[in-house]
Amino acid sequence: MGKKQSEFAYIKNLIDKLPRTGKDVIVGAGDDAGVIKLSEDQYLLATTDALVEGVHFKSTLFRPEEVGRKAVAVNVSDIAAMGGKPTYCMVSLVLPKILDEAYGIKLYDGIIEECKRYNIQIIGGNISSGQELVVDIFMLGKTTQDQMILRSGAKAGNKVLVTGFLGEAAAGLQLLLNPKFNIDNLISKQLTPTPRLKEALVIAKSRLATSMIDISDGLGQDIGHICDSSGVGVKIYEERLPIGSGVEEVAGMMDKDPWELALSGGEDYELCFTVPEKYVEKITSVIKEQIGTQVSVVGEILPKEAGRILVLKNGEIIPLPNSGWDHLEN
Amino acid sequence: MGKKQSEFAYIKNLIDKLPRTGKDVIVGAGDDAGVIKLSEDQYLLATTDALVEGVHFKSTLFRPEEVGRKAVAVNVSDIAAMGGKPTYCMVSLVLPKILDEAYGIKLYDGIIEECKRYNIQIIGGNISSGQELVVDIFMLGKTTQDQMILRSGAKAGNKVLVTGFLGEAAAGLQLLLNPKFNIDNLISKQLTPTPRLKEALVIAKSRLATSMIDISDGLGQDIGHICDSSGVGVKIYEERLPIGSGVEEVAGMMDKDPWELALSGGEDYELCFTVPEKYVEKITSVIKEQIGTQVSVVGEILPKEAGRILVLKNGEIIPLPNSGWDHLEN
Repeated sequence: MGKKQSEFAYIKNLIDKLPRTGKDVIVGAGDDAGVIKLSEDQYLLATTDALVEGVHFKSTLFRPEEVGRKAVAVNVSDIAAMGGKPTYCMVSLVLPKILDEAYGIKLYDGIIEECKRYNIQIIGGNISSGQELVVDIFMLGKTTQDQMILRSGAKAGNKVLVTGFLGEAAAGLQLLLNPKFNIDNLISKQLTPTPRLKEALVIAKSRLATSMIDISDGLGQDIGHICDSSGVGVKIYEERLPIGSGVEEVAGMMDKDPWELALSGGEDYELCFTVPEKYVEKITSVIKEQIGTQVSVVGEILPKEAGRILVLKNGEIIPLPNSGWDHLEN
Repeated sequence: MGKKQSEFAYIKNLIDKLPRTGKDVIVGAGDDAGVIKLSEDQYLLATTDALVEGVHFKSTLFRPEEVGRKAVAVNVSDIAAMGGKPTYCMVSLVLPKILDEAYGIKLYDGIIEECKRYNIQIIGGNISSGQELVVDIFMLGKTTQDQMILRSGAKAGNKVLVTGFLGEAAAGLQLLLNPKFNIDNLISKQLTPTPRLKEALVIAKSRLATSMIDISDGLGQDIGHICDSSGVGVKIYEERLPIGSGVEEVAGMMDKDPWELALSGGEDYELCFTVPEKYVEKITSVIKEQIGTQVSVVGEILPKEAGRILVLKNGEIIPLPNSGWDHLEN
């Protein structure tokens, strides 16, 4: 979440150093989750994401229950983006001594509540003391060979789709940081995002998507990961971005264009996926009918050499922004 | 590692709040690892343990490679203590910005090196920035129904056995903190402990042990966990404690009895296990023959009402020390 390009380069260097994995490891480091083949049709998913106080949240803005819920939700989002169902998790906490015991218990209440919501069983964990609060979740999930969706399958000509609305969580954070305004739905998108698990499972079962990722760092950066893994380029249209209601207002307050929040704001936990053109209508209507969630076509996959571009409303073409901004530093 | 009684009470409160797990979860929170039944004879183990700078190590005393190696080793030790083999892991780092990139890469080198040693595949991870260094490892492993060893099977009359020597890691830490002396084998036990994986697998295959735990917090505290889970008491004999060579010297330097380091020092990563009396000779000689590791009988399991006691060399009986001391605060 909220990583900068230099961090990605650093992580890529680390991943490149890792020893080659065996045949049982279908996907190693570098996708939303690792994938292990347990048997012909049983694939184990494993992912980890941490919330660090002062980096991913301020404890003055989040209640402890919300920190717990969000820590689970961001991991569910990663499992969902693989076409999987979350199953088990472990919780590793670093709890500063200055927080009272009640804080940790409320945090855990949020973790338990969110796990119940997705039928995830907590099978263990660890607590250490430390100077700053870290909520680190390890999430396991399951999928099948047929339903697994990687970042690497996008083909030139595929359409790029996103669920729901963009920019809301980033706008919500701005409202929390500048409490002159209050737009409830934006603030709750920031505090307690809902991972798109149901939508992901419908997409996985349809077997129509060629690639998928969850939008944690901003669409601009996350579609970039699909481009990296699939060896393709992409064109996104500003006018097609499903910008959440109220986002425009907040963008104005920040003296930014709404598309900046929509593309770079991050933490939307919407799904971005690619689909051959002929299946776009089918997948869009299936999701709408079964769940009620809007899906928007925001662009299309290009050959790699065409690069990654954004077509503004005025027809101007600019490079697709590829960095989320660091929310708590700006 | 190095937890105090108040922390255990706190963790127990949290565990008690967890929703009941399903039938597929053979062991949930509260053992060395969680156990999930994947199929009739395929049990998945999952554990997590973190090293926090300033709590579990000082970066002035540990090279980054050693931090990485130890972070893996302590998790391997947990999997081993279940009678399992480690298979896959994920690495979640919180890296302070003040550490240069090279530090993180060396840390990762240590993680990779230790994983290779045990044939563990790294399948993913996460990196966050933060104020203090946290190396959090999530380790998966496998075992079978027959070979799994829990904390809960100890019976009154069983003998209590430990592999190797006790107190060495704690003595090594004292030498690192007070660099007037240097005893290499003690220091390396602190910096790069070797989990007793081979020994654990021999014990698991023998199917003779009724319970097992790895000694991370000190024998006094860790045998206490077996007593809690098994509903039994225990008697440990000072004269039978396999106190490592050089430990006596360091204990003298600290104005402590050697048994204090052996029972409360922690971080030995030796195995403590219980065995019916008639199998003690067999299991001891099998381990000695196959691996060369010494095993000592240090006491016996009592009925619960007999409590947890230590018999000193002079015949005096005292309560078994049940707290590791906080290494970096004493």
